[in-house]
Amino acid sequence: MCEAYSKEKTIEMRKKHIGPSCKVFFAKDPIKIVCAKGQYMFDEKGEKYLDCINNVAHVGHSHPEVTKAAVKQMELLNTNSRFLHDNLVQYAERLTATLPERLSVCYFVNSGSEANDLALRLARQYSGHNDVITLDHAYHGHVTSLIDISPYKFQQLGKEAKKEYIHVAPSPDTYRGKYREDHPDPGAAYAEEVNDLIREAHQNNRQIAAFIAESMQSCGGQIIPPPGYFQKVAEYVRNAGGVFIADEVQVGFGRVGEHFWSFQLQGEDFVPDIVTMGKPIGNGHPMSCVVTTKEIAEAFGATGLEYFNTFGGNPVSCAIGLTVLDIIEKEDLRGNATRVGNYLVELLQEQKDKHQMIGDIRGVGLFVGVDLVKDRQLRTPATAEAQHIIYKLKEKRILLSADGPHRNVLKFKPPMCFSKEDAKMVVDAIDELLTAFEEGTGTKRAAVNEQPGSKRKDTGHTHDSSNNVHSNACRTQKSGFRSKNHSVSNKRIRT
Amino acid sequence: MCEAYSKEKTIEMRKKHIGPSCKVFFAKDPIKIVCAKGQYMFDEKGEKYLDCINNVAHVGHSHPEVTKAAVKQMELLNTNSRFLHDNLVQYAERLTATLPERLSVCYFVNSGSEANDLALRLARQYSGHNDVITLDHAYHGHVTSLIDISPYKFQQLGKEAKKEYIHVAPSPDTYRGKYREDHPDPGAAYAEEVNDLIREAHQNNRQIAAFIAESMQSCGGQIIPPPGYFQKVAEYVRNAGGVFIADEVQVGFGRVGEHFWSFQLQGEDFVPDIVTMGKPIGNGHPMSCVVTTKEIAEAFGATGLEYFNTFGGNPVSCAIGLTVLDIIEKEDLRGNATRVGNYLVELLQEQKDKHQMIGDIRGVGLFVGVDLVKDRQLRTPATAEAQHIIYKLKEKRILLSADGPHRNVLKFKPPMCFSKEDAKMVVDAIDELLTAFEEGTGTKRAAVNEQPGSKRKDTGHTHDSSNNVHSNACRTQKSGFRSKNHSVSNKRIRT
Repeated sequence: MCEAYSKEKTIEMRKKHIGPSCKVFFAKDPIKIVCAKGQYMFDEKGEKYLDCINNVAHVGHSHPEVTKAAVKQMELLNTNSRFLHDNLVQYAERLTATLPERLSVCYFVNSGSEANDLALRLARQYSGHNDVITLDHAYHGHVTSLIDISPYKFQQLGKEAKKEYIHVAPSPDTYRGKYREDHPDPGAAYAEEVNDLIREAHQNNRQIAAFIAESMQSCGGQIIPPPGYFQKVAEYVRNAGGVFIADEVQVGFGRVGEHFWSFQLQGEDFVPDIVTMGKPIGNGHPMSCVVTTKEIAEAFGATGLEYFNTFGGNPVSCAIGLTVLDIIEKEDLRGNATRVGNYLVELLQEQKDKHQMIGDIRGVGLFVGVDLVKDRQLRTPATAEAQHIIYKLKEKRILLSADGPHRNVLKFKPPMCFSKEDAKMVVDAIDELLTAFEEGTGTKRAAVNEQPGSKRKDTGHTHDSSNNVHSNACRTQKSGFRSKNHSVSNKRIRT
Repeated sequence: MCEAYSKEKTIEMRKKHIGPSCKVFFAKDPIKIVCAKGQYMFDEKGEKYLDCINNVAHVGHSHPEVTKAAVKQMELLNTNSRFLHDNLVQYAERLTATLPERLSVCYFVNSGSEANDLALRLARQYSGHNDVITLDHAYHGHVTSLIDISPYKFQQLGKEAKKEYIHVAPSPDTYRGKYREDHPDPGAAYAEEVNDLIREAHQNNRQIAAFIAESMQSCGGQIIPPPGYFQKVAEYVRNAGGVFIADEVQVGFGRVGEHFWSFQLQGEDFVPDIVTMGKPIGNGHPMSCVVTTKEIAEAFGATGLEYFNTFGGNPVSCAIGLTVLDIIEKEDLRGNATRVGNYLVELLQEQKDKHQMIGDIRGVGLFVGVDLVKDRQLRTPATAEAQHIIYKLKEKRILLSADGPHRNVLKFKPPMCFSKEDAKMVVDAIDELLTAFEEGTGTKRAAVNEQPGSKRKDTGHTHDSSNNVHSNACRTQKSGFRSKNHSVSNKRIRT
């Protein structure tokens, strides 16, 4: 592979010229990637890595059709949206066709952060209110207004970092949260928490502009909201004069398989007021979009203030966006997400029977989380263990990450061309690592001795069976596994 | 030219699917552009337009080398900066080499808005303060935090729109502002205004995080700050514990000709603490950058908070950025900006002798403003006339815009390959329009009758002669021209 600099030189130049806040994966021994194809990445030595984490390279790394579309349009024209162009309107039409009818007006921007910021501006203008309800552990982007609504970030900055106009609702996590799988209606219970926040805000003479949530929380730990939650929240928020913003930046564009958007997992009767999208939209090309209703768009327009985004909706971005939509359809990537996602979850369930460290498996399509625990009953997060596994997988040339508030959730969000063979390969590697770990810490016998009656039971908590949502299975198992004495330190390891 | 839809259909689809806040040029009869090359754009009928306004297509529309660089890298890899990549560090090294030595640390982002927002975050973290001083009529971007520091925007929203942590200093406009060309040291006087704001803030127990200004104000009316202004402002702001942010999003990358950055017009003794760049950086590819000092970067890093920008600094963006730098050099575009810019100003100066409506010509390189007035002595902005000219030029297939707080400043910011022939063509067209206008309103004689002694005198106010800064010439001329009775309404026409 051709390199301009040795890896050491690259690291040295990076230290000199790139802000130290910009972290690399596997900081102790970062990877230099020089090319990628489909779901595989290659380092400077030609070593091949299986990519289970790049949700941006949605239709596969370096997809030739995407490149072709970009070149074709770059050779013709790349300018701003103050000129009329067919790509812009065609793309807007195609994109809105994937959404419920009332979501018909687009604003094209450059990143998920720009999208979420604009969503807040739309919500505030439309409602005339200022306050925002966000979920605990949520991450919505890196600009100032979004750090404010991202507990995942601002909670690291100390207690004073929470602004008075931000209200944090509990994450609707039925495995580790306030209301769990044994609650008769966790969706309603979590929604009631939002309603309480609204009431409290009103008592303090504050008014709610918006509730914002990822349709499934990703950084928050691969959380799939329980059924009915969004419907009820939307009702409460709208009653308070606010709007419902569904952040689909990480989880949209068919990742969940049978639906194009993750919010659709909540059922057809749920329609957000604003949807933001980003990462996979251009397969790596910097682009993003906000879609909303005519009413909200008109209220925003009524100020007379122009909204101009220099690069947003340029003909090249739109050509790429159209091609990504085509590829998702042509290559049946949603079908693949369902088939491979289901297979991956099946394989993981088998591992759960074998390894006590797997506390929960949840996911839908190619969005899957494996919650690692030190103790199944106490659900103690196995943070260091998760980091250890991630590093060991890297040595086996498999790229996986661990996230969530405890950084103990193995997070699958691969390119959508991920295959059953890939799934088998990564699960086999995890099996091998967990087995070695158990042998090393003398915990193997406990797993082997497990009762046959504790076999997987994945009907525990799903939205409805047709959704293929796998979540919170086998929760009542007792753990014979203890990892207190293992050799991995509990210190956070940056992957 | 091939079209997917008729122009009418494109307009209809745009109305349906694109937010009404996203305006088009020439709203009454917008232009549909299907391709572009160099400094020319072509509509759906193949009509050729001379482009005097696209400062994004910096090295020329559809530059083949830019496309080549994009394709080459897209075929290999497009991923995030959590992996090591040579393009990122090489580009950071090349970019910082164009800047004074202490500006050595980069953050790659996707747009000028993301860059300016990050600049504020850096400033606030480094200083521990919150307040920002901004210039009147400034525009720094479309995200929430930047609307707050953009009087060009927030002043349209009513008096309450100014936040208490924002302080607005007068624009250092020596033609129309508080201190003019007849002031002995307008730079010092305008800087003293900033110092007054700092004192006032301190009296109110407020602390300054940053002063932010475009190195030359563009939306603000093509304003070139007087010599010494930035040095003094930087001194006052740093004494208050704040930093100086130079916004080069519109005016950087050699547009001013002999310097690579516009802030360098103030002299070598001036170095900002943070520089933001954007529009021309990728010739239309959505990318942008913030460059700062090691100290500020380390203070930002010290929080431990990761800064991750999904698309920022990806290998494709960096490959394009490197190529744009190469082309600027290889094609001597800075030399071209100086030569053509000087020629353009010369031609405009001749027009000034002929047409009383031209009140001021200011500019450097290919950043030139023509301030149109109804009355040279009163300097009454000729707003409607400017809009009329813009529309008439469009009929002649020339794209120019009018901006500034009164929308009366004709604004040249063409692709950097703009030629002397192009300059001649547009100035001839302006001459023809002004002549016809004068004939139509019976004001021609006044111009013809002008005293010979009032011929142009463009040494009035320049930074220093070597900078080729043309500004505020012939200010003492008395006007015999009155345009009160002309037929163009004074209503704002959206171009």
